[in-house]
Amino acid sequence: MKRSLLSFTTMLTKESIFTALLVFVPISIAAHFLGWGELAVFITSGLAIVPLAGWMGTATEELSVVLGATIGGLLNATFGNATELIIALIALKAGLVDVVQATITGSIIGNLLLVLGFSMLLGGLRYPEQVFHQTAARVNASSLNLAVIAILLPTAANLLAGGIPEPTMQRLSSAVAIVLILVYGLMLLFSMRTHTHLYNLELAAIESCESTEATPTSASHDQRHLWFWVGVLLGITVLVAIESELLVGALEAATAQLGLTPLFTGVILLPIIGNAAEHATAVTVAMKNKMELSMAVAVGSSLQIALFVAPVLVLAGFVLGQPMDLSFNPFELVAVGVAVLLSNSTISDGKSNWLEGALLLATYLVLAITFYFYPA
Amino acid sequence: MKRSLLSFTTMLTKESIFTALLVFVPISIAAHFLGWGELAVFITSGLAIVPLAGWMGTATEELSVVLGATIGGLLNATFGNATELIIALIALKAGLVDVVQATITGSIIGNLLLVLGFSMLLGGLRYPEQVFHQTAARVNASSLNLAVIAILLPTAANLLAGGIPEPTMQRLSSAVAIVLILVYGLMLLFSMRTHTHLYNLELAAIESCESTEATPTSASHDQRHLWFWVGVLLGITVLVAIESELLVGALEAATAQLGLTPLFTGVILLPIIGNAAEHATAVTVAMKNKMELSMAVAVGSSLQIALFVAPVLVLAGFVLGQPMDLSFNPFELVAVGVAVLLSNSTISDGKSNWLEGALLLATYLVLAITFYFYPA
Amino acid sequence: MKRSLLSFTTMLTKESIFTALLVFVPISIAAHFLGWGELAVFITSGLAIVPLAGWMGTATEELSVVLGATIGGLLNATFGNATELIIALIALKAGLVDVVQATITGSIIGNLLLVLGFSMLLGGLRYPEQVFHQTAARVNASSLNLAVIAILLPTAANLLAGGIPEPTMQRLSSAVAIVLILVYGLMLLFSMRTHTHLYNLELAAIESCESTEATPTSASHDQRHLWFWVGVLLGITVLVAIESELLVGALEAATAQLGLTPLFTGVILLPIIGNAAEHATAVTVAMKNKMELSMAVAVGSSLQIALFVAPVLVLAGFVLGQPMDLSFNPFELVAVGVAVLLSNSTISDGKSNWLEGALLLATYLVLAITFYFYPA
Repeated sequence: MKRSLLSFTTMLTKESIFTALLVFVPISIAAHFLGWGELAVFITSGLAIVPLAGWMGTATEELSVVLGATIGGLLNATFGNATELIIALIALKAGLVDVVQATITGSIIGNLLLVLGFSMLLGGLRYPEQVFHQTAARVNASSLNLAVIAILLPTAANLLAGGIPEPTMQRLSSAVAIVLILVYGLMLLFSMRTHTHLYNLELAAIESCESTEATPTSASHDQRHLWFWVGVLLGITVLVAIESELLVGALEAATAQLGLTPLFTGVILLPIIGNAAEHATAVTVAMKNKMELSMAVAVGSSLQIALFVAPVLVLAGFVLGQPMDLSFNPFELVAVGVAVLLSNSTISDGKSNWLEGALLLATYLVLAITFYFYPA
Repeated sequence: MKRSLLSFTTMLTKESIFTALLVFVPISIAAHFLGWGELAVFITSGLAIVPLAGWMGTATEELSVVLGATIGGLLNATFGNATELIIALIALKAGLVDVVQATITGSIIGNLLLVLGFSMLLGGLRYPEQVFHQTAARVNASSLNLAVIAILLPTAANLLAGGIPEPTMQRLSSAVAIVLILVYGLMLLFSMRTHTHLYNLELAAIESCESTEATPTSASHDQRHLWFWVGVLLGITVLVAIESELLVGALEAATAQLGLTPLFTGVILLPIIGNAAEHATAVTVAMKNKMELSMAVAVGSSLQIALFVAPVLVLAGFVLGQPMDLSFNPFELVAVGVAVLLSNSTISDGKSNWLEGALLLATYLVLAITFYFYPA
Repeated sequence: MKRSLLSFTTMLTKESIFTALLVFVPISIAAHFLGWGELAVFITSGLAIVPLAGWMGTATEELSVVLGATIGGLLNATFGNATELIIALIALKAGLVDVVQATITGSIIGNLLLVLGFSMLLGGLRYPEQVFHQTAARVNASSLNLAVIAILLPTAANLLAGGIPEPTMQRLSSAVAIVLILVYGLMLLFSMRTHTHLYNLELAAIESCESTEATPTSASHDQRHLWFWVGVLLGITVLVAIESELLVGALEAATAQLGLTPLFTGVILLPIIGNAAEHATAVTVAMKNKMELSMAVAVGSSLQIALFVAPVLVLAGFVLGQPMDLSFNPFELVAVGVAVLLSNSTISDGKSNWLEGALLLATYLVLAITFYFYPA
């Protein structure tokens, strides 16, 4: 129990900037009930979600350690992007289908260009050249290529056929969603059963990065630890959900007030809120010259979005009575294609430097500018 | 003569599953003349073509051995996809221009995703990691990139210009076809004259795979062998042509009955019939861990389609009074682009595993689903 | 002074074919004033620009040596494509906005397919396989990918949004232009300050190629040398400007007479005139088996066009009252994409042979044919 308490305390204190943002949890609730305006609610709830998303990740990892390799690995693979999933589900329930679709592509673009770009830039300012092994990176890149192509094919068909009827798009999207979830299952099988050795290097890097409390001990399988972390996770989930409700409720009015389109909000704004914690992790480890881990976070998160979050949202759309197909805005198709192409070509030589990071960030900037000017 | 008879007998007996399918030759003819319906004719003639295509390949290779390296190599390079060519010419004569166009892209997609995917998946289930030398593979990949881009450029121009007049498309397509045939000639020069050594590795692999009868002997240049194999080849060609007439004649009625569009029929259905023998070869050698050969079959066949079969069909269209330009359905453009991109990125590291095979197959599946739902 | 005079004399005499073309300077002026017709003026002024562009490059390099590494490097980086820039500015002033836009993409395509293609083909006819180090090539390729994507994104957005209002396109293009110039600054910082060692190999290759007069000596910083070369450069610039005025003035009438569209003129014809000197250099060094240098010329020139010339033209358009946005013809987008993709895949293995060169040339040929038939 001591270990759990210790790591709970560490979780609360170690990243003080993030922890400070927690004051926005009560502030955003006050803003909502005292009627400070939609913009105030939107900004404060957005800021409140940032540290909660970080805690959610930590709690999921701790619970994974308690549950052991297999079930823990599955848990991590399933709830690694839980914050994005919660925000998206609440937005979907509220009928903001186009925002949710945009969040999917925005998360992929953000991970591949913004997270990777900052990692390579800030890491590269410390080390003239950073090298990384490519075995696992290659497999991930191939999977990402497939995943991204698969979720974008219905949009391409819709665009090129000059419009596909809505019921056909629904059936097509569901069929693609099922293939994607199957592929996700195969990937887990590959990484956790048949080719575990390819990922050992990454795991070793992760372990050497984590503080002592993360070392699995015999006590870690203790049932009380399990329930303790389940409780913590549930508590954070409730907070994230509450804040997401505030964020989504204020979204339309607030972004209209700021002159932003739903497309820009979904592609650029929301993913930055949901992924802030991942950004922090990836950049921190890059500055410790652990580029494998940094890339595992960025590419792995993109993979999870494309192979798990996106198909789950398609299938959840039916349940929630808000059918969401995979027909993105055609320019999202271009943006994701660009992000995958550039990150692939940057990763492929197994080396990085600050200029490559700056180039990825410049690409993100140009994309963001174009989305800003893109007509609604 | 003994050698020829021996290999003729082997050809008839060694692949018993294929040989069994030969019963569909008389059945399909019966179906046609006894009026069993177009669907029955379509299915039985399709099944009859599978073993004939296999035999055609074997007979062409035998004849190549008899004719010696240079002329034999040319023969193999020219008639390696003879079955596809015959089906396409008969369909072209019957005026099914859109089906023929779709067959071209479908053969490329099928070779790069389906053949390569099954090879890597089934090979990968036996060997955790399969490696292959990349010299020849690289040259082939570069050639394939050019070939695929060249045959797709007229379609891209047509789409982006908002329609190019038919006579201009004809002239543009003919000019492109002539460049493609010239490039094909240069490739043969490269592989058979100036850079033969790059391909030695592959040839060695092929030889070590083939049974003893394929070893060239002094007797193999015997004139009687020549005429024997010419006779066998002619006989098979006549059978293939007859069956192709049945297949093409029943095609429109049968596919309409099945609810399939001409696009789906051309892109997915016909290439599976014409390439079944190549599938079998590529997968068999992959399971013997000879990945170079497996890829040479898949990529080489795609190259031949793009650089030889497609331009020949364009030029033949004029002769047959059924002018066929290179304006494909825009979504075929996307599908071929995806197939080339993914197979390139999968091949580029010189290693393969079962997951990469599964990813190629999943991509093929998603493409096939999209083609199925694509509006006519 | 002796050194300067010597290298001035060498400049005048060493490339006799180019020097012979100088007779077209007086001829083109005569053609203009004696009224020989627009076609005669267009052809003769085009031929006159070829040697002047070559001299301009030599003079810029000599001045760079005199000015020392940093300022000289900046000068070279800024005026390396001065001829293209002058032609484009004069055409822009004359209101030929679509021709200028086409010249930008045409220069990139020409460098990546035509220059690189001829280098690999002619180099490959002498040496069966040519190898090159990839460190600097990789960085350049990544930068080029970004640059090309960034200048093409406004076109993609315009196409996919079904038309973006002109003022928005102007603001979007200006914003992208500013990002591109910043990236260009970062690239210079990278190559001239933080990662100079990556480029040493290339510099060594360049030095070993140049004749003795290019070796920096203590005398080379002499002020008189400085003013001598400044004078030479100014003189050539005036000649280039005069000839560009003639070329641009005759352009519309002459190309209409030849039945060429502005698109074809801008993408194919003008870049061949402006880049002839670079073609000669790249091919000459390739035939001396110095492929690194050959590629540095081709890729470096493309980079300069995309990151410096294009944004300068966008910003100059405002000053000249001829606002030019970055909305290219959609097919230019495809052509540049194809050129970048193929050159990337050809360079990526660090080896080249004659077939790869022939493939790049064939791609250029197919693109040129398509541009020729592309409706106005």
